[in-house]
Amino acid sequence: MANIRDIAKAANVSVTTVSRVLNDHPYVSEEKRRAVLETMKVLKYNKNLNAVTLSKGKTQIIGVVLPYIHQPFFSLVLNGIARRASEEGKTIMLFQTNYEEEKEREALEKLKGKQLDGLIFCSRALSQADIQMYGQHGPVVLCEESEHMNCVYMNHYESIVTGVRHLRRRGYERIGLTLNRNSGRNTNERVRALKDSGFHDEDIFYGALNMEDGEEIARELLLLGNDGPDALIITNDTVAAGIYNEFRRRGKKIPDDLALLSYDNQHIAQSLEISSVQLPLLEMGEAAYSLLSIPKHKKIELPFTLIQREST
Amino acid sequence: MANIRDIAKAANVSVTTVSRVLNDHPYVSEEKRRAVLETMKVLKYNKNLNAVTLSKGKTQIIGVVLPYIHQPFFSLVLNGIARRASEEGKTIMLFQTNYEEEKEREALEKLKGKQLDGLIFCSRALSQADIQMYGQHGPVVLCEESEHMNCVYMNHYESIVTGVRHLRRRGYERIGLTLNRNSGRNTNERVRALKDSGFHDEDIFYGALNMEDGEEIARELLLLGNDGPDALIITNDTVAAGIYNEFRRRGKKIPDDLALLSYDNQHIAQSLEISSVQLPLLEMGEAAYSLLSIPKHKKIELPFTLIQREST
Repeated sequence: MANIRDIAKAANVSVTTVSRVLNDHPYVSEEKRRAVLETMKVLKYNKNLNAVTLSKGKTQIIGVVLPYIHQPFFSLVLNGIARRASEEGKTIMLFQTNYEEEKEREALEKLKGKQLDGLIFCSRALSQADIQMYGQHGPVVLCEESEHMNCVYMNHYESIVTGVRHLRRRGYERIGLTLNRNSGRNTNERVRALKDSGFHDEDIFYGALNMEDGEEIARELLLLGNDGPDALIITNDTVAAGIYNEFRRRGKKIPDDLALLSYDNQHIAQSLEISSVQLPLLEMGEAAYSLLSIPKHKKIELPFTLIQREST
Repeated sequence: MANIRDIAKAANVSVTTVSRVLNDHPYVSEEKRRAVLETMKVLKYNKNLNAVTLSKGKTQIIGVVLPYIHQPFFSLVLNGIARRASEEGKTIMLFQTNYEEEKEREALEKLKGKQLDGLIFCSRALSQADIQMYGQHGPVVLCEESEHMNCVYMNHYESIVTGVRHLRRRGYERIGLTLNRNSGRNTNERVRALKDSGFHDEDIFYGALNMEDGEEIARELLLLGNDGPDALIITNDTVAAGIYNEFRRRGKKIPDDLALLSYDNQHIAQSLEISSVQLPLLEMGEAAYSLLSIPKHKKIELPFTLIQREST
């Protein structure tokens, strides 16, 4: 069936215009409106029922909760959400929480107060149970696995198991892990997978989010010398770059002195030849948006890909 | 004078809580409220008058217009805005426009309809005149120089002149430029500066925004051989990284075969040893937010710093 992109193309208007017409939104010229309606007839377009459900919302505003904006992971997920929202003429209200529960609650209260048509949690500090209580007031979607709420996620346990298998195949024996938080479902899954693989708490480094954190962990590792891991699975590419740079400055070699496997596969991993687990983050955002319109509980697991480079 | 960060620290509550108390915002426990008010007395805190002006807005919502979220430049400016907004208990409504005028107009109409307390343009497709007409409905701030609207900006003309001087001092004679758009005030300033420095249109490459664009420009340059520039001033670090990677793949050397000077000084420039013009982007976002509360026309010019590395 034709989608609104096809309509836009055939009617020679923007996707935004088509979605405006579908949602009886103002600021569309009569001429464009007629062009779109004509084209919809020609292409036998049936308005997407999910889209209808959502468009019945009063505010046309979708809330997005995330801890930090300037992190590739979150800005890409946000980008995916924004792309789909824009197609449907929705606006995004942004809640940058820095993992403060009270800011997450503020977003939930806006949903309860019908100031939002739906709410997407890219990550959370509140418990899933706390968030779920607000589900009665409007659609809520999580970007992590949930048994009760609509969610889109990747299998973090499997991603670590895959990383460990890859590193062992490459001859590394003592594998460590860096993480940002010491709580959160995805974090717990990664830790569980590392321990199930036979590795120990002492090689897990927390508080690893930025390049500076990576440089600090690198200095710790250099002090440990041979008492440290010979390979690290790392929070994200930025932390990995910090470790890479600090090792290089100290005349150490990657992967000879330390093998690096990171997450997100951003440009910096490509440029520094760091192996990285690629997650479909734009798709995660788009899926999260689409899940807002699905009434019954639905889980979407997204695949990940391990991209090997010189660092392992 | 003590600011709300000091209060938060002394009262042992979050900055958000302090700003909530200042703005008579709900969801603050009576106990915390009393602690904050007490501390304010002790520290002789006088509520910032600008903050008051803004907090009189009905919606407590600030609109932010930007073309793309997942660009270090824009996500950092957005981050600065979000930080200040959060301190004052404001929420951000995000308009990702991809430079579509009709989406920019949608944001302006929300300001006119009093659905926003203020609007910040990180970049624009509409003319300044079009935007200015809405100034009567509420505060509008631009992140580029304007003679009529409050604005925070850096001097793009000067930044190019500085870059050219640096490259000439390093012995480069034919200097080219890459840009994203072929319109927009900042773009025009950069082009004007390059031409005033004696260089030519033929060495200006447009449509340079992402790493892939950089790789494509690199391939063009490799075809040009000695008929091309020996140094490039580049849109941003990501494009520079694309050029760097493609040259490296073809066995070419930076800076011997081509000198690179880029903008933004993000992690990737640091990691690849690419010289870059550092802009205080977080500060730009924070300044843009503060300008929303200043009734009379005010311009803030932010300084830039050229950071030299191995690529020049």
